[in-house]
Amino acid sequence: MSVRLGQVVDALGGELHGAGRDTEIARIAPLDSAGPDALSFLNNPRYQSQLATSQAACVIVAPALREAALARGACIVTPDPYVYFARVTQLWARLHGRGAAPGVHPSAVVHESAQVHPTASVGPLCVVERGAVIGAHTRLASRVTVGADCAIGERCILHPGVVIGADGFGFANEGGVWIKIEQLGAVRIGDDVEIGANTCIDRGALGDTVIEDGVKLDNLIQIAHNVHIGKNTAMAGCSAVAGSTTIGAHCTIAGAASIVGHLQLADNVHVSTNTVVTHSISRPGHYTGVFPMDENAQWEKNAATLRQLYRLRERIKALERKNQDGPAATQQ
Amino acid sequence: MSVRLGQVVDALGGELHGAGRDTEIARIAPLDSAGPDALSFLNNPRYQSQLATSQAACVIVAPALREAALARGACIVTPDPYVYFARVTQLWARLHGRGAAPGVHPSAVVHESAQVHPTASVGPLCVVERGAVIGAHTRLASRVTVGADCAIGERCILHPGVVIGADGFGFANEGGVWIKIEQLGAVRIGDDVEIGANTCIDRGALGDTVIEDGVKLDNLIQIAHNVHIGKNTAMAGCSAVAGSTTIGAHCTIAGAASIVGHLQLADNVHVSTNTVVTHSISRPGHYTGVFPMDENAQWEKNAATLRQLYRLRERIKALERKNQDGPAATQQ
Amino acid sequence: MSVRLGQVVDALGGELHGAGRDTEIARIAPLDSAGPDALSFLNNPRYQSQLATSQAACVIVAPALREAALARGACIVTPDPYVYFARVTQLWARLHGRGAAPGVHPSAVVHESAQVHPTASVGPLCVVERGAVIGAHTRLASRVTVGADCAIGERCILHPGVVIGADGFGFANEGGVWIKIEQLGAVRIGDDVEIGANTCIDRGALGDTVIEDGVKLDNLIQIAHNVHIGKNTAMAGCSAVAGSTTIGAHCTIAGAASIVGHLQLADNVHVSTNTVVTHSISRPGHYTGVFPMDENAQWEKNAATLRQLYRLRERIKALERKNQDGPAATQQ
Repeated sequence: MSVRLGQVVDALGGELHGAGRDTEIARIAPLDSAGPDALSFLNNPRYQSQLATSQAACVIVAPALREAALARGACIVTPDPYVYFARVTQLWARLHGRGAAPGVHPSAVVHESAQVHPTASVGPLCVVERGAVIGAHTRLASRVTVGADCAIGERCILHPGVVIGADGFGFANEGGVWIKIEQLGAVRIGDDVEIGANTCIDRGALGDTVIEDGVKLDNLIQIAHNVHIGKNTAMAGCSAVAGSTTIGAHCTIAGAASIVGHLQLADNVHVSTNTVVTHSISRPGHYTGVFPMDENAQWEKNAATLRQLYRLRERIKALERKNQDGPAATQQ
Repeated sequence: MSVRLGQVVDALGGELHGAGRDTEIARIAPLDSAGPDALSFLNNPRYQSQLATSQAACVIVAPALREAALARGACIVTPDPYVYFARVTQLWARLHGRGAAPGVHPSAVVHESAQVHPTASVGPLCVVERGAVIGAHTRLASRVTVGADCAIGERCILHPGVVIGADGFGFANEGGVWIKIEQLGAVRIGDDVEIGANTCIDRGALGDTVIEDGVKLDNLIQIAHNVHIGKNTAMAGCSAVAGSTTIGAHCTIAGAASIVGHLQLADNVHVSTNTVVTHSISRPGHYTGVFPMDENAQWEKNAATLRQLYRLRERIKALERKNQDGPAATQQ
Repeated sequence: MSVRLGQVVDALGGELHGAGRDTEIARIAPLDSAGPDALSFLNNPRYQSQLATSQAACVIVAPALREAALARGACIVTPDPYVYFARVTQLWARLHGRGAAPGVHPSAVVHESAQVHPTASVGPLCVVERGAVIGAHTRLASRVTVGADCAIGERCILHPGVVIGADGFGFANEGGVWIKIEQLGAVRIGDDVEIGANTCIDRGALGDTVIEDGVKLDNLIQIAHNVHIGKNTAMAGCSAVAGSTTIGAHCTIAGAASIVGHLQLADNVHVSTNTVVTHSISRPGHYTGVFPMDENAQWEKNAATLRQLYRLRERIKALERKNQDGPAATQQ
């Protein structure tokens, strides 16, 4: 099933050059693998060299590249080609009927007191517990659990295996035995939030765990009780946030990063892959703490030295003292 | 729905001062956000400054703080305010009917040969396989799988998405091809164990994987085949234990920590967040191995140096030799 | 239920010595815990000392250990005892009827357009979406989701909670707001692939995510969109691969290792536990990047120094300059 370029610009804007509105597109593809039936895009100027040789039927480009693109063939000119490409994928999905139908799949288990908006889609084998609320146009893919009293906003997507509102991990220790602290809060999720497969967001201990509008969470993420994540923050797969930490808006947390509990992260903080955030961050910026990989033999040497690092510093200090005293001493 | 302070002390003990038994409590809240309808608690003396200004109807305090608390208003005096608070949350949940009803939800798939105690609760869309045993008062929340021949003790809680008794990861390599080692053991879980959402505990290869009484596991934890975890040990989210490792009793393993296979950890070992335990630990204590986070630019400098750390040590050695020889040389 | 040694060698080959074909075996056990009803194996010569004292009815050994084994009692001699042991566990499982019956469990939700081979087994509460293909003799254990248009080969095993074909994590940023890139690709999985509990493999953005024949993935693994994993590569629990990375054949990725996006890893690359792979690897070998664990007090000293590592190098440089100039200076 194909789409005409005219349909694309009618729906999404942009200037079509060098090709007729009836040109048919059978697929969307990256520049280097696009065939003559494909619509492609050039986002990163680094890949400009791929433009001239691309076989794509049409390439989405920024205004600055209009001439270079036209020299090759058809193009759509738009201020932000990557955003335009994103909207093309959405158009594509819509035209190909990939959306979920509204309604509750008969195999889902929805408590009678839960409120599921009629435009929401609750997929196969989902569980929606007592008092939970699912907003308009929100989609629970399949095998999603939304716990008691948790609320999901509008236009959210929850992928398979997501667990919202399991108990937070809270215990008091009495003579070596753990006494459960019942988790009396819930989870509140804003609008336009996407949550990846098998990700878990625990309910709060007393207050609620809060995920604000526009937050995007990848797969297998752990969000502990009473965490608060600000608007439009994105977290990549296998990252984790411990209890009661607040993350600002417009942050990006890379894959497998960990943020310990009871911290405050400002807006616009960017944390690198596998970094462990152990203290609050009050300034926007890019933060990293990744141990560098090496060939194993080389790593073994360095790791052994690393465990003596403090002593190395002491040895340097001693040398520095000697080198200050030394000349004087030899003058005696 | 509110609870009277008299109900609280009747159920849990402690001395009520400065308020009538009929005082009604509408919620439980932390000191700094408690309103005049809330019961609060002061556990950590660090937060004592919050006591004077808290609006709470009543504060749970230790005997040493009785006078300070009374100067503010009502209090319940008890030896361990945090344990008391935990029990209040349990009372709260009980009075508000938050417990799970016994019985097997009609959507669950329970093999006819499985033994589910009549007081146990098997929630929606759970799977209990052939020969599995679920003990008294144990609760499988929703979408939990308990594999063939696995046994869960009494008063356990298994949160949504938990998988008990999937195959351990065992293969022999024959000319580059992996030959499956069928996992013939099972999983045995003691009493009072809690297991967080989407956590996985694999069945043993020959013997069983064993989780002893009182162990608490958070979300998204991986417990490999033939692991043995001792009584009352607690592990936080995203931690992992590789095959055949034994962890003692009363240990705490922080979030995203990893313990490699075939190790022995003594009782009372405490492992910090994101630490990788690569050798056995025979002494109780606190163990850490976290690469410190920094601003990215600073990290890049340090990481580059780190890969040369062994050579730095060599250079220090060379300097030390020179500094021992040097004075002698200049005396010539 | 027991098995006769004659059955074992008839099915798997190997030479039986020192015991009759009718000798009955009630279990398979490691050397050190095997009783007189057990079949055991000696794979690693390191454990040869356990051979003499083992109570096992029969021990599987390599030809070089035939005499040592016979001096103790019965043995089966075979070129690769560990592979033979693996096949014994398979025989054991088969004889004890542990296989899954073909067919779709009535509680599973299989789209009418999905193609499930008649010899495949789709367990309880699985979801197989529109256009998905499940090959011959493949087993979906329970609560597995296979997304639209994804294809699983023959003889695969997908453990409980696996999610194949959730959306990859792709967004364009427009003025701080994330615009979803619909994930238009699928997931293609070869033959003889095993996938552990709660592991997630995302669908591709434009092309497909590809897992080749013989790949083995443990539990709680994240495979992002457009990743390509070569034949017979094995990845241990909690590891993760970010988008568009290609991993070669016959690699091993240890537990909790992370591989960032857009990299190329050659064949026969072995990555240690918790290592973060941040650049492409073109040569086979063993790569490591684990921060060493220490007692917490010692770690604190070293970690503090680590953040000054770059300055330490500067101080060494300064000392080296001084020590070159120094002797000359004192000669003046």
